[in-house]
Amino acid sequence: MMDTVAVNGEVRRLEELRLQDFLQSFFFGAGFFETFLIEEGAPMFLERHLARLRSSLAAHASCVRAPPPEVLTAGAVREALRRCLEADVHLGPRFTGVGKWVAGDGRLLLSFRSLAPQHERTLRDGWVLDEVEDRCYRRGDPSLNHKSLSYLRQYTHLGRGTVFVNEAGELCEVPNGNLFFLVGDTVVTPPLEAPCLPGVIRSVLLEEGRLGGLPVVERVLTRERLGDVRGCVLTNSVSLVLAVPLLLGRALPESHEWAGYARTVVREFARREG
Amino acid sequence: MMDTVAVNGEVRRLEELRLQDFLQSFFFGAGFFETFLIEEGAPMFLERHLARLRSSLAAHASCVRAPPPEVLTAGAVREALRRCLEADVHLGPRFTGVGKWVAGDGRLLLSFRSLAPQHERTLRDGWVLDEVEDRCYRRGDPSLNHKSLSYLRQYTHLGRGTVFVNEAGELCEVPNGNLFFLVGDTVVTPPLEAPCLPGVIRSVLLEEGRLGGLPVVERVLTRERLGDVRGCVLTNSVSLVLAVPLLLGRALPESHEWAGYARTVVREFARREG
Repeated sequence: MMDTVAVNGEVRRLEELRLQDFLQSFFFGAGFFETFLIEEGAPMFLERHLARLRSSLAAHASCVRAPPPEVLTAGAVREALRRCLEADVHLGPRFTGVGKWVAGDGRLLLSFRSLAPQHERTLRDGWVLDEVEDRCYRRGDPSLNHKSLSYLRQYTHLGRGTVFVNEAGELCEVPNGNLFFLVGDTVVTPPLEAPCLPGVIRSVLLEEGRLGGLPVVERVLTRERLGDVRGCVLTNSVSLVLAVPLLLGRALPESHEWAGYARTVVREFARREG
Repeated sequence: MMDTVAVNGEVRRLEELRLQDFLQSFFFGAGFFETFLIEEGAPMFLERHLARLRSSLAAHASCVRAPPPEVLTAGAVREALRRCLEADVHLGPRFTGVGKWVAGDGRLLLSFRSLAPQHERTLRDGWVLDEVEDRCYRRGDPSLNHKSLSYLRQYTHLGRGTVFVNEAGELCEVPNGNLFFLVGDTVVTPPLEAPCLPGVIRSVLLEEGRLGGLPVVERVLTRERLGDVRGCVLTNSVSLVLAVPLLLGRALPESHEWAGYARTVVREFARREG
């Protein structure tokens, strides 16, 4: 993580921040975060991330202290980002890496980190999913529709090939993103009620509505129907799209091609949104 | 919250603590906490709280950085507590209130707060449970057996009369404690697999094994069997035992008497453990 951060738009150094200004987030996981890709100084899908953050804050207005509304505008966050990049020689206006917001305790904290050393290799090789965690997720659990600081369950599985499955045997999501499956002539992704996070890249692919000529829809996929899956991709805001060449023991060589299609859709969507 | 805290046994002021020393807890809710009653300077069930904390840390050794083992001994935590109480005139060696540990980021943070203004009134009147949250809890979810900083779900419901119910319709726990029900001639409490937190007061009542002459056992209670319930109490480490005079629309006047029995058991157990 980089030294330079911003708190409610003000450029600060991480070491200056006091724990006592973030106690509700710290003690109770009562805050929300967003992780987004920054390429050559430009944040990707900034307004979508901001909208999701505002939505989670609005849904928890009685228990999480939101930052002042004026710091949650696209203009304000772009300006804070620009000032941070200019202030730190290790960032700079052409910084490529990861931005992260945490909103809670009446504050919006913006921080930065580099892309993981294995970032490029993962993009090339994809992400193997080889483990099921089917004891935790509950169909319809609304708490998993928000990217909150109460993240231990996901964090425990980060970097592993875990798929979270609900009590009905439906595949929900992975610790680092949403899932899309090629089933017959349709690309399906679990509904939010699975539950899963309303991922930004997920929303882009659903809005585009087509991938490689096939329709993209929200639909339940159970473990029993895994045999019907011809391809699988994982989406998140930093890697955008990763192929899943191996899904719970099933080799899916078509996944790489579908990851390529999806990446193109996402990139073109991002260009259109500016 | 009081100004005086201890970090790994060293007395500090809250305002001196830097966020950057607690980042894993802050960003990912990757830490555990314990809340315990301090009466006249004496912490109640200190060794049980410490054992639970160590157990959660051991179960998450791969993803949560535990404090050094030497700060997690009964002697070390008693000494840290004593030094904090002596260091702060607002605490003092006869302090009565609430102690809280947070363990994560390689640190054990000890902090203090007063009892809530309504503490005595709640002990007298009990706690009405009038709301069911039945969309979140999943039977067997191991993550809910740990009192982690990923606490937003509970925090959202704190102060309300919520009962968490799993997908099988089984009553699990409440945001502020465990539940015991008087059903026929048995006192039953949900099993850990419900899931629920392995509460310290819960463990004491189960170890004692009898309450008001009746056996105390772990057993599932479904919503359909609520009509069989004659009394209900809520247990936690600060209030110890609260009567539940109204449980989901059902008046339970016997609850006050059973809360009295349970409080006596807990107090005597605490005296024996020293």
